[in-house]
Amino acid sequence: MADYSRYDATEIKSWTSAVFEKLGVPSEDAAMTTGALIHADLMGIDSHGLNRVTVQSYAGGLQNGSINPKAVPEIVHEATSTAVVNGQNGLGPVASTVAMGLAIAKAKESGAGFVSIRGSNHYGASSHYSTMALPHNMIGFSMTVGGLGVVATGGRGRRIGINPMSVAAPAGQSDPFILDIATSVVAAGKLELARMKEQPVPAGWIVDSTGASTTDPNEFWKGGAILPLGGGPETGGYKGYGLSVMIDILAGVLSGGGFAGELREAGIRGGTCHFQGALSIDGFGSVDGFKTIMDRMIAYLKATEPAEGSSGVLVHGEREINAERERLHKGIPYHREVVGRLEVLAKDVGVPLPTPVAAE
Amino acid sequence: MADYSRYDATEIKSWTSAVFEKLGVPSEDAAMTTGALIHADLMGIDSHGLNRVTVQSYAGGLQNGSINPKAVPEIVHEATSTAVVNGQNGLGPVASTVAMGLAIAKAKESGAGFVSIRGSNHYGASSHYSTMALPHNMIGFSMTVGGLGVVATGGRGRRIGINPMSVAAPAGQSDPFILDIATSVVAAGKLELARMKEQPVPAGWIVDSTGASTTDPNEFWKGGAILPLGGGPETGGYKGYGLSVMIDILAGVLSGGGFAGELREAGIRGGTCHFQGALSIDGFGSVDGFKTIMDRMIAYLKATEPAEGSSGVLVHGEREINAERERLHKGIPYHREVVGRLEVLAKDVGVPLPTPVAAE
Repeated sequence: MADYSRYDATEIKSWTSAVFEKLGVPSEDAAMTTGALIHADLMGIDSHGLNRVTVQSYAGGLQNGSINPKAVPEIVHEATSTAVVNGQNGLGPVASTVAMGLAIAKAKESGAGFVSIRGSNHYGASSHYSTMALPHNMIGFSMTVGGLGVVATGGRGRRIGINPMSVAAPAGQSDPFILDIATSVVAAGKLELARMKEQPVPAGWIVDSTGASTTDPNEFWKGGAILPLGGGPETGGYKGYGLSVMIDILAGVLSGGGFAGELREAGIRGGTCHFQGALSIDGFGSVDGFKTIMDRMIAYLKATEPAEGSSGVLVHGEREINAERERLHKGIPYHREVVGRLEVLAKDVGVPLPTPVAAE
Repeated sequence: MADYSRYDATEIKSWTSAVFEKLGVPSEDAAMTTGALIHADLMGIDSHGLNRVTVQSYAGGLQNGSINPKAVPEIVHEATSTAVVNGQNGLGPVASTVAMGLAIAKAKESGAGFVSIRGSNHYGASSHYSTMALPHNMIGFSMTVGGLGVVATGGRGRRIGINPMSVAAPAGQSDPFILDIATSVVAAGKLELARMKEQPVPAGWIVDSTGASTTDPNEFWKGGAILPLGGGPETGGYKGYGLSVMIDILAGVLSGGGFAGELREAGIRGGTCHFQGALSIDGFGSVDGFKTIMDRMIAYLKATEPAEGSSGVLVHGEREINAERERLHKGIPYHREVVGRLEVLAKDVGVPLPTPVAAE
């Protein structure tokens, strides 16, 4: 039996939307949520779409009542270029899509729009929101308070958030720049994989329960934690720690929601916070001028001589955009274990999974 | 003979301003430039004040005509919340102080203000500008295109900028959060130190001319480069590489100035670019509410159990603010080698150095 089945992107989108609608989500909101999940699957961000448990966790939250399917995001405070949105404990992509739309509208008017969001839930991949700015000739920003899994430099235990961020900027002939990174060294998924394969992890990924560096992935589940971007203190780990706290401030403190530590320790539902924004390029000058320099910069970066044994320098977003092109054409590949989980969900809610277009 | 002499902060400020005035800088601009340099010395950011060669490089640029002492920064494009400022090849702190004032004024009106700056020169420590937002109950941002010293992940050679960034946010009872970091693992100054002491550097700091990791600091001067924050590809170095490019986009591309690679390879004068901004907390909600959560978050972070052998977790800015308090009270310590260099400059421009207040 083939390991992967490919599903047509339009068909799997319709299926996902229908699942959310069956779970009580209004069709427009179901489409927003599906958009975030399929964005991740198309771009090969396998940790944030149907490929991992994201769709099941969203569906599970709707089924057990911890996520409100009918929540209507509310603007609770507003100025010309800023706002706070309360997600009312609905699906993360709904509040976040509405908020990013608001940021873009504000940037259209004033040059800049920044919106902080509280009372939300998991929102998928950050780049789904930052890239919404691109067709408007804007630079997009998106950040979110993530899981509490990271050690604060000098301490022990999981005290700060995995807190990812994304920045997207349009180019001319070249593909856009799309940065989408966690402020930790790695995501927890990579530790799970190493544990399953009984392999050590590289030095600089995690600490044990005393705060000391270790290469044994099992230590993460015995009171250990992931290191912030930069690793230990000697290689700049306090920088990743600071970037994580910066996201807590912009998403959590500014929205009035709280910060990673208290939100996660209290286990607050609807306790995830986000921050999104847009800068309109024409608030700074000529859009064509901007794109010309972007193209020149991207060409310069790609012309870098490769390191010994490397296939060369990539620009951020390049790999993801190539994956998207391929997957829109050939379908999105899901591993048979993923398909098995989707079949369970399909049966559970009564929406049959589409037929795959290819197996490989 | 004592290694360090302490100088009264007010006296050394007056001296520095007088030096710039002697070199043809209008007194208001001299005060702005002095403010940036003494900010770094007070906060213990020894790489950016009189402690290193910054003041000499500024003075040297004014003397050899590569920096225009009379430059008047010009707003070349503007929207409600955004602007581009051309520094007209003047002193970096002049264009940057004017631009940060403009960002704050825009944030006062609309909630957000972001200004991109081209045609500038070295501007000192980023936190000097981000912290200007604090008394206005705003979150401040400052970034700059820095020296071309960093390898792009997968490549070899110095292709991207050291590009630092700073974010400052006010708190209530606690000291403010002040993040001030380079997007590279380390600054070049630390490599110089290791070379002088003939010591190896930690793995993950630099690569040699083939792009391979090395612990020999001499390799940096033989075609090597500093690694971006995160180190090699396995520990997330592409994240630091992406943050460096993000700063190129916001400071260099958005202002129309260019990007680190072309600015530095062409050796353009007045070719440094910056990006600064402010978000007004009252554009998002209650300032008191914000500060209450900030205090709670800072207390939570400081209450983290220390790692084995560590003295505990610091919050960003804590060390610097403590240094500032001590130095405002006891004077700023300068090493005798630094004092020697300042004496040369004092004689050269004819402004005698003040008498130290203490030696230690």
